[in-house]
Amino acid sequence: MKKGIAASKGYAIGNVVIKEDNEVCIVETKITDLDAEKTKLNKAIENSREQLTKIKEKAEKDLGAAKAAVFESHMMLLDDPEFTGAVEMNIESNMVNAEKALNDVIEMYMGIFGAMEDEYMKERAADIKDVGNRILANLAGKAGSGLEDLQENTIVVAHDLTPSDTAQLDKNKVIGFLTNIGGRTSHSAIMARTLEIPAVVGLMDITECVKDGDTVILDGEEGLAIINPDEATIAQYEEKKAAYEKEKEELKKLIEVETVTKAGKRVEVCGNIGKAEDIHQVLENGGDGVGLFRTEFLYMDREDMPTEEEQFESYKYVGEKAEGRPIVIRTLDIGGDKKLPYLPLPEEMNPFLGYRAIRLCLDRKEIFKIQLRALLRASAYGNIKIMFPMISSLEEFLAAKEVLSECMDELRAEGKEFNADLEVGMMVEIPAAAVCADELAKYVDFFSIGTNDLIQYTLAADRMNEKVSYLYKPNHPAVLRLIKMTIDAAHKEGKWCGMCGEVAGDESMIPTLVEYGLDEFSMSATSILKAKQIIMNN
Amino acid sequence: MKKGIAASKGYAIGNVVIKEDNEVCIVETKITDLDAEKTKLNKAIENSREQLTKIKEKAEKDLGAAKAAVFESHMMLLDDPEFTGAVEMNIESNMVNAEKALNDVIEMYMGIFGAMEDEYMKERAADIKDVGNRILANLAGKAGSGLEDLQENTIVVAHDLTPSDTAQLDKNKVIGFLTNIGGRTSHSAIMARTLEIPAVVGLMDITECVKDGDTVILDGEEGLAIINPDEATIAQYEEKKAAYEKEKEELKKLIEVETVTKAGKRVEVCGNIGKAEDIHQVLENGGDGVGLFRTEFLYMDREDMPTEEEQFESYKYVGEKAEGRPIVIRTLDIGGDKKLPYLPLPEEMNPFLGYRAIRLCLDRKEIFKIQLRALLRASAYGNIKIMFPMISSLEEFLAAKEVLSECMDELRAEGKEFNADLEVGMMVEIPAAAVCADELAKYVDFFSIGTNDLIQYTLAADRMNEKVSYLYKPNHPAVLRLIKMTIDAAHKEGKWCGMCGEVAGDESMIPTLVEYGLDEFSMSATSILKAKQIIMNN
Repeated sequence: MKKGIAASKGYAIGNVVIKEDNEVCIVETKITDLDAEKTKLNKAIENSREQLTKIKEKAEKDLGAAKAAVFESHMMLLDDPEFTGAVEMNIESNMVNAEKALNDVIEMYMGIFGAMEDEYMKERAADIKDVGNRILANLAGKAGSGLEDLQENTIVVAHDLTPSDTAQLDKNKVIGFLTNIGGRTSHSAIMARTLEIPAVVGLMDITECVKDGDTVILDGEEGLAIINPDEATIAQYEEKKAAYEKEKEELKKLIEVETVTKAGKRVEVCGNIGKAEDIHQVLENGGDGVGLFRTEFLYMDREDMPTEEEQFESYKYVGEKAEGRPIVIRTLDIGGDKKLPYLPLPEEMNPFLGYRAIRLCLDRKEIFKIQLRALLRASAYGNIKIMFPMISSLEEFLAAKEVLSECMDELRAEGKEFNADLEVGMMVEIPAAAVCADELAKYVDFFSIGTNDLIQYTLAADRMNEKVSYLYKPNHPAVLRLIKMTIDAAHKEGKWCGMCGEVAGDESMIPTLVEYGLDEFSMSATSILKAKQIIMNN
Repeated sequence: MKKGIAASKGYAIGNVVIKEDNEVCIVETKITDLDAEKTKLNKAIENSREQLTKIKEKAEKDLGAAKAAVFESHMMLLDDPEFTGAVEMNIESNMVNAEKALNDVIEMYMGIFGAMEDEYMKERAADIKDVGNRILANLAGKAGSGLEDLQENTIVVAHDLTPSDTAQLDKNKVIGFLTNIGGRTSHSAIMARTLEIPAVVGLMDITECVKDGDTVILDGEEGLAIINPDEATIAQYEEKKAAYEKEKEELKKLIEVETVTKAGKRVEVCGNIGKAEDIHQVLENGGDGVGLFRTEFLYMDREDMPTEEEQFESYKYVGEKAEGRPIVIRTLDIGGDKKLPYLPLPEEMNPFLGYRAIRLCLDRKEIFKIQLRALLRASAYGNIKIMFPMISSLEEFLAAKEVLSECMDELRAEGKEFNADLEVGMMVEIPAAAVCADELAKYVDFFSIGTNDLIQYTLAADRMNEKVSYLYKPNHPAVLRLIKMTIDAAHKEGKWCGMCGEVAGDESMIPTLVEYGLDEFSMSATSILKAKQIIMNN
């Protein structure tokens, strides 16, 4: 038995197929015929584009538009003259073979993106590697993932799975996968959850421990791989699997059901999203709307600020698709550990206690106003609510509302439509906001408790710091009291209170939150149905 | 008029004497007679030792033992074979003159200490420069600070004043000083406050703006230097000065007075100290005891952990000198921005939310126990109370008490004396501790509110970060509420509550704290009398 990281829930009992690493061995050779080499490169790029088009079509069907979007960005790289131009220039100036020239360029890109601290940028590095390897494979005439002709009941075992590997998996044949590397937020893990097939990642050397045809039990709850199990174990897991699948079916019945607690209170269960397209997954999972749209993703992975028009289109898209359901959009929460390449910020000794979110926006109003104008304009097309992050005092909230009001005046003068009555609320994620929630509640339309930061500041413990992460306890009595104080304060003023931190989707915490009278729970889309069930039983 | 940093309170109207920089110009020359050069060096060191002995004697008389201790460390450097050996070796291996050899060694030391972030280590760099320059001056036959034969009513103007410059100032002649560089915590500023002469530092180019004999008004309240003022201004400042001095005399009457509020409540006004000798200044200023002994200073500026015996001697010294007055000793608060050269700690992204203080001590019990044993043993000689820093939960406090109890068992077994009933309390500096103060109050003997950290975490704003320091407000309603909750919680369980952060000595905050019922105020020694006065009027 091997223990790894449970990346996607569920159980599978099947036969191993080991996916061979299809990395191409790069040999540098000097060339003489420049045109022939460039033609070879372009042919490989062309083949890659055809493959990706097919993969993308399949992904759209199997995974939905949001998850297929990654292949769009792969294809964009193929069309990016900066990328292909760099390869051609490398061929030309060094008179080397296309493989070597391409590999150099990939490594340069990987170095740039891989060195960034941001999780999102690291993912971008994985994308570049994925598409780069595809072109290399085409150059070597070795296209194909080796996962094309699989039998039923296959458990794929690999060092790692790229986005395109995962997208190509045939869900009728592949019932789970195991990888050596990766974590809960790696591409392969996210894809597995989207495909709804169980997966265990970070198993270190699973590729060395099994051979093709071995029977394996994959336990996506505990993060286990049991190799060639005995009959009794198989029987035990058959039972677990049946129970799990039964529950999943049960949960699906809740998609259209309104969430009402035992006491008869109607509660909203919403999804957290990072990109406009993510709204689909929320709706498919029975979400009542979006409780947190993290807009910073619109600002990342690009070379300049998104324009008002670009932002407007994103917000409008979500608003329209949600068909009247509430969409809570958080204004830019950049700074701290989240940096933008085109917005240089000072180095800070304690970035979590530093210049970020509303602090930055109130200081850089020209940036803030672009977003607020886009949000207001989108409010004409959907049930948009605006939420300010990192509010520590009433003064800050009022200052932010003042900027919003300026934007309203501007739009009025320009004759542009917006919903002047849209709700404006704030995150409660700084202890001071929770302690003074009674005062703040008089001025806001709603609160949304951001537990990740609230816990971190209340306990003075950076949860990313492994030396003190043991202190980060969502059920610490101080945290529970601050949550209750915030909910009570909102209700006293007739306002609603939601929660969009990880605690909102924590099965062990939901009963307490129901008891406290939380009005809205917002979480990752895949947790919504289970949360609905727990809430309805409490 | 020039504006600088008010470093020491009060007013002075006098005549300028500019202190010439006595830095020696270093010219490298090759030598042939090695022994002659070494003899020259040793003679200069010998002269320096004689001068420092005299300065130290004068400082002990004028400034007290605590402040004179710096010259002890200067003299120790003269005796340090590592230091003098390095100079001799440099002379020998490069066959250069003593001046050049010494200067190289000073620069090396300065580089090492100056690069450290810790304020205390930076001071150490200033000490080395001071003693180094003294030897250089003696080598050049230029001993003497140029401040020996001063007239009455002299205001010394200098680029900077070293500790030995300041110690030599004749308080009967020098009524204030002005410097180009320095801040509120620089050596010269601290010395001025101890000497009780007004001073303004950080005036940038004051040495260029005045000449010997100019009349200058020094405003140590506003941080001003008014050069050659008119009669009206002089008259105005004569009045201010008289009023200030009258108040100072009034305050001195409070030294022996018990502090009682208007409502009749007896309140303790104590001092914060960093070294054992600082107890004297607290007592001279009418302190009721020590509300915070920051023991990390015992661990700094050395190459290894202080032994149990060394610590015991320090704690015993304070306990005995205090003659029964309470001495609250905080256990080691290292980590975060305070590092020890002999205790490597991991680099952290947010050190203020990291591995420090009680977190480190509970993890490294072998270090913690040495201190606890020393504290317990000292409790046989004075009214010692132990205080744990950075407590975020009851579990942590109980875990710390458990280690203390182990130490008591050990000492009992060894037949060593200690006070088994000594009070054990905790800092309230993490929001969680304030929010749960009612629970914690059942287990502690006392609370002491550490406002610096409490404010920082409650508002999620690093006060050292100039981009967000505007958010750091001691009178933020959330901070005031947490302070009141903590005091009320202590009283409900019959425990006392003190405060040892900067807010305790903040004149504008004291009335509120009296109203809340704070039992003990602890602050820098020089603020005690003023605080007593304000408390008695509230």
